[in-house]
Amino acid sequence: METLTDKILTSTIRQRPADSYKGTYGRVTLIGGNRNFGGAILMASAAAVYAGAGLVTTITDASNQGSLHARLPEAMFADIADVSQTQALVQGTDVVVIGPGLGTDEAALQVLTNVLRTVTPNQTLVIDGSAITLVAKYQLALPQAHLIFTPHQMEWQRLSGIVIAEQTPTANRQAVDRLHATVVVKSHRTEIYTATQTYVNPLGTPAQATGGMGDTLAGMIGGFTAQFTPQEQAVCAAVYTHSAIAEELAQTQYVVLPSQIAADLPRFMKAHEGTQA
Amino acid sequence: METLTDKILTSTIRQRPADSYKGTYGRVTLIGGNRNFGGAILMASAAAVYAGAGLVTTITDASNQGSLHARLPEAMFADIADVSQTQALVQGTDVVVIGPGLGTDEAALQVLTNVLRTVTPNQTLVIDGSAITLVAKYQLALPQAHLIFTPHQMEWQRLSGIVIAEQTPTANRQAVDRLHATVVVKSHRTEIYTATQTYVNPLGTPAQATGGMGDTLAGMIGGFTAQFTPQEQAVCAAVYTHSAIAEELAQTQYVVLPSQIAADLPRFMKAHEGTQA
Amino acid sequence: METLTDKILTSTIRQRPADSYKGTYGRVTLIGGNRNFGGAILMASAAAVYAGAGLVTTITDASNQGSLHARLPEAMFADIADVSQTQALVQGTDVVVIGPGLGTDEAALQVLTNVLRTVTPNQTLVIDGSAITLVAKYQLALPQAHLIFTPHQMEWQRLSGIVIAEQTPTANRQAVDRLHATVVVKSHRTEIYTATQTYVNPLGTPAQATGGMGDTLAGMIGGFTAQFTPQEQAVCAAVYTHSAIAEELAQTQYVVLPSQIAADLPRFMKAHEGTQA
Amino acid sequence: METLTDKILTSTIRQRPADSYKGTYGRVTLIGGNRNFGGAILMASAAAVYAGAGLVTTITDASNQGSLHARLPEAMFADIADVSQTQALVQGTDVVVIGPGLGTDEAALQVLTNVLRTVTPNQTLVIDGSAITLVAKYQLALPQAHLIFTPHQMEWQRLSGIVIAEQTPTANRQAVDRLHATVVVKSHRTEIYTATQTYVNPLGTPAQATGGMGDTLAGMIGGFTAQFTPQEQAVCAAVYTHSAIAEELAQTQYVVLPSQIAADLPRFMKAHEGTQA
Repeated sequence: METLTDKILTSTIRQRPADSYKGTYGRVTLIGGNRNFGGAILMASAAAVYAGAGLVTTITDASNQGSLHARLPEAMFADIADVSQTQALVQGTDVVVIGPGLGTDEAALQVLTNVLRTVTPNQTLVIDGSAITLVAKYQLALPQAHLIFTPHQMEWQRLSGIVIAEQTPTANRQAVDRLHATVVVKSHRTEIYTATQTYVNPLGTPAQATGGMGDTLAGMIGGFTAQFTPQEQAVCAAVYTHSAIAEELAQTQYVVLPSQIAADLPRFMKAHEGTQA
Repeated sequence: METLTDKILTSTIRQRPADSYKGTYGRVTLIGGNRNFGGAILMASAAAVYAGAGLVTTITDASNQGSLHARLPEAMFADIADVSQTQALVQGTDVVVIGPGLGTDEAALQVLTNVLRTVTPNQTLVIDGSAITLVAKYQLALPQAHLIFTPHQMEWQRLSGIVIAEQTPTANRQAVDRLHATVVVKSHRTEIYTATQTYVNPLGTPAQATGGMGDTLAGMIGGFTAQFTPQEQAVCAAVYTHSAIAEELAQTQYVVLPSQIAADLPRFMKAHEGTQA
Repeated sequence: METLTDKILTSTIRQRPADSYKGTYGRVTLIGGNRNFGGAILMASAAAVYAGAGLVTTITDASNQGSLHARLPEAMFADIADVSQTQALVQGTDVVVIGPGLGTDEAALQVLTNVLRTVTPNQTLVIDGSAITLVAKYQLALPQAHLIFTPHQMEWQRLSGIVIAEQTPTANRQAVDRLHATVVVKSHRTEIYTATQTYVNPLGTPAQATGGMGDTLAGMIGGFTAQFTPQEQAVCAAVYTHSAIAEELAQTQYVVLPSQIAADLPRFMKAHEGTQA
Repeated sequence: METLTDKILTSTIRQRPADSYKGTYGRVTLIGGNRNFGGAILMASAAAVYAGAGLVTTITDASNQGSLHARLPEAMFADIADVSQTQALVQGTDVVVIGPGLGTDEAALQVLTNVLRTVTPNQTLVIDGSAITLVAKYQLALPQAHLIFTPHQMEWQRLSGIVIAEQTPTANRQAVDRLHATVVVKSHRTEIYTATQTYVNPLGTPAQATGGMGDTLAGMIGGFTAQFTPQEQAVCAAVYTHSAIAEELAQTQYVVLPSQIAADLPRFMKAHEGTQA
C-alpha cells in the first residue's frame, strides 16, 4: 500500500496548454438529487465545475432546477424523469457521476439501470452513495466502462460482502479484482484500490465529518477524471485534494462545509499545478 | 445564579477526535417554516449546519425546498405535510428542533402533536417559537425526553403563567421544575434554567435586536446538543456563543444579521476550542 | 434650502440603548414585486433589514417567495393576492413601503387602494415608484398618516402636475404643501421637502445610475423611519447614507449595484453612529 | 489585422458625466434560457448588469424566474412564452442580446423570428449561441439594425459556410461583408470583424475554457454597446476586458468561472476608466 503525498498533485494537475477549449476539459454529467436530497447533487455539481470540468450537466428532480441555477449557473439542467433525454446526455458525455442524493426507491433504480445500460467502454462512470446500495441490493449488471466506486465503509460492506471489521487491504483487494473497477473506500484514512495498486490517503480532519462531504468528493472525482490522465492518478489526486483543502480550512474552522471545499478548488489547484504534461 | 464566562466555551467545544465520522456529531432534524415564515427554519437550519452537526434535515413547507437548497445544500429536505415521513425522520434523529416559523394554525398543531407523540426518552427536543405558544395554548402533553424550551419573555409568560414583570429567578425556577425541562428565557440578559442550576448570560448587544435571532439560537442549540455533553453545558455554550459572536460583529456593524452569526460559527468555535474531552 | 452634511448621520443614527429588543426598532412592511419586477421588492426589503429594522415583512407575488428567502431569510413573506392578510399585516406595522415593482395594472391598483384605506394616522406610509404613478393617475384619496413620497422627476411631474423643467424649489414647495407629505424628489441632486424645511443632498455619483437604486432607497427610508426620530431627519439621513455609501464604493467601482449598498449599511451606519439619544 | 491593446479600455470606458441617470446607460434586453439552459441567460444578464447597463430585462423560461432574482434582483423578468410582451420589450430597448441558452427547438425559432421582425434600424442586436445556429439553419432574414454576431468557430462555420480549417482573415472578411454585421469569432485568439477593420485579441487563458464563458461575453457586449460609442470600439473593449479579467484571476486560479468575471467588472472597469468623453 502506497501512501499518497503532494507529489500526486503536481504530477496530475498540469498547467493547461494555451491552445485549448472547453471540450479539452471534458463533459461531466451528474445524476442524482431526488426531492429530498437535492442538495447532494448540487454540491457534487459545484465540485465538478470548480474543479475545472469543461461542461457540466446536472440531471436531477425537476424541483431542484431553481436552486441549482441560483447556486451554479454554470451547470446545465435536465429533468431526471425524462428517460430518453437522460440516455442522450449520457451518450454524449465523457464522465457520468451517479448517486449523490439519488435515493433508493423504484424511480432511482430505473434511472440507474437506464444509465448502466447506456454507458459505453470509453466512458468513465463514478458510482456513489445510494447508487452503490442499489447495485449491491439488486446485483445490477455493470457495464464495460471505466468504473469508479466511492463507497463509505457500510456501502462497501453492501457491495463487497465484507463486513466493516474485516475490510482489510487483502480482503478488499480480492473484492476489487472481481469488480473490475477502481474503488475508493472512504473512512478516516481513505484507501484507493486501482487495478494494479493500492493507495492510502494520509490526510483528513474530523472537521470534515459532516453531511455532503462524500457528494463533493464524487463531483471532484468527476471533474478530475474528465481532465487528467491516467485516470487512476486523477482519482488519487481528487481524494488527496479534498482532504488537503479540508485540512487547510480546518486551521481556522471548527467544521468545514462541503461547499467551502468546492469553492476553494480553483485556488488550491493553481497553487499545486505542475508543469505542462 | 451563575454568570457564564468564556470558560463555558473551552469546556464544551472540544477538539474533535481524529477517528470520527459524521455520525459522531449527531443528527439534527429541524421542523418549521410555513409558507409565510420559511426564512425562520432556513436560519435555524444554517445554524445547526455551521455549528457542526453531522447530519441536518429540514422538515418544512414544500414551498421552501428551493430556497433551502439555494442557501444550504448541506441540509436534507422533507415535506412537512408528509406525516409518516416526519415520524420516521424524528424516530431516526438525535435532536429535534421544532418551532421556527412553524406558525400556530391547525396544521402546525397537528405537526407538533405528531412530533410530541413520536419523540422517545433518549432524544433531545428543542421547543421554540410558535411551538411554545401551541404547547401553552393547548396544554399539550410533553414526552419523556431531554426537553429544552427557548421562549422569549412573552412566550415564557404563556408557558409558565408568570407575567413578564414577575419573571424572577425564584418564580421561574418553580415553573421550570414543574416542566422537567431546561428553559432558556431570552431577554436582554438571557437566563438558562437547567434541572439543578441557573445561569445568566452576561453578553448581548442591541445590534442583535432583529428578527431571526431566536431562530438562529434554536438551531445552534440543536447543533451544540447533538455534539457536546453534558447537554446543559451545551445549551449554555450555545447561548454564550450566539451573543459573543454578535458582540464581535457589532464592533463594526450597527446591526448584526442572524445569518451572519451562523456563518461565523466555524471560525469562532475553532478560536475557542478546548482540548479533547 | 439647506444642504445636508454628515452631521445628519450622527444626529440621527444613534447608539442603541442596551436594554432594547426587536420591537424597539420597528416593524416595516414592504409591498410590491409583481411577477415581472420581483427583484425591486427584494432589493427594498434587503435595504430595510440591513438598515436595522426590527421586523420586516414582504408582501409580494407568490412567485417571488423562493427568491426572497434565498437572498433574505430575515424577511417574512406574504402573498399579495391575499387581501385580508395584507390588511392585517398593514394594521400591525409601524411603517409601510409600497411601490417597488408593484406595477400599474388593475391588481396593483386594488392592492394600493386597499392599503390606502387601511393605514392609520400614527403609521408611516412610504409611497414609491409605480404606486406614485397610480396615485397620480387615479387621483387616489390619501390617508391621514405620515406620508412620504419618493418620486423621480417624471413621477413627480405626474403627481404634482409640474413639468420637469419647471420643478423649481418654489413650485415644488407649493405642491408639497398641498400633499401634506414629505417628498423626496430624486435626481442628480436629490431634494427633500418636509413640512417646514427643504434640504438638498450634495452627494451622489453617476456610478449609481442603474436600475434598482430607487427601490433600495425606498427600503432604507422604511428602515430609517422605523428606528429614528424625528421622521423628517430619518428621511434625510437615509437619502444621505444612500449616496454616501455609493460614493465610497464608486472609488473602486465603475458601477455600484443597489444590493451592494444594502449590504454595506451595517458597516457604514456603525462608522457614523452618534451618541445615544 | 490590428492587435488590441489596453488603450481600447481607456478610450472606451469613459468617466461617467456627473449629471446622468440610468437612461443614459441604456436598456439591455436579454433573451434566452430554456428549461435546460437557464444558467446561460443568468450569466449573460449578470454580465450586462455588472458592466453598468442602466436597465436590464431578462426574457426567459418561466421556470428561471426564481433563480434569476435569487442571483440578480437588479434584472427585470419576462416570460419568454408571452409573444406580445416580448415584442413590446424589444421595441422599448436599446440593445437586444438573443441566444444564451435559447436552444434550437421550434419554440426557440418562434422567439427568434419574432425578435428579428421587431428590431428596428437604430437598435443593436447581439446574436449569440443557438440563435446563430438557428439563423444559419433556417437562413433567417436579418433585420436592418446594428448586428453583432458572437459565434465560436463551429457556429461561424454554420453561419458563414467556411469550415474551421479555412477560417482565414481573408475568407472571414468576405463572409462578414455579406452579413453587414460585426462578427466576433471566438477562439483561442478571438478575432473581431467590424465593417471597416479587423482586430485580434491577444489575451486569453486556458483557465477560461469552461462552459458559460461565451454567455458572459455576450452579456458584456450588450452592456458595453448600451453605454459606449462607437459601437465597434465597445465590442472590442468588451472582448478585451473579458480576457483581461480572466488573465488576472488566472494568476491565482486554475479555472476561472464565468460568474467571477461578471462580478469583477465594476472593479476592473474603474481601474481602466478613461477621462470623460
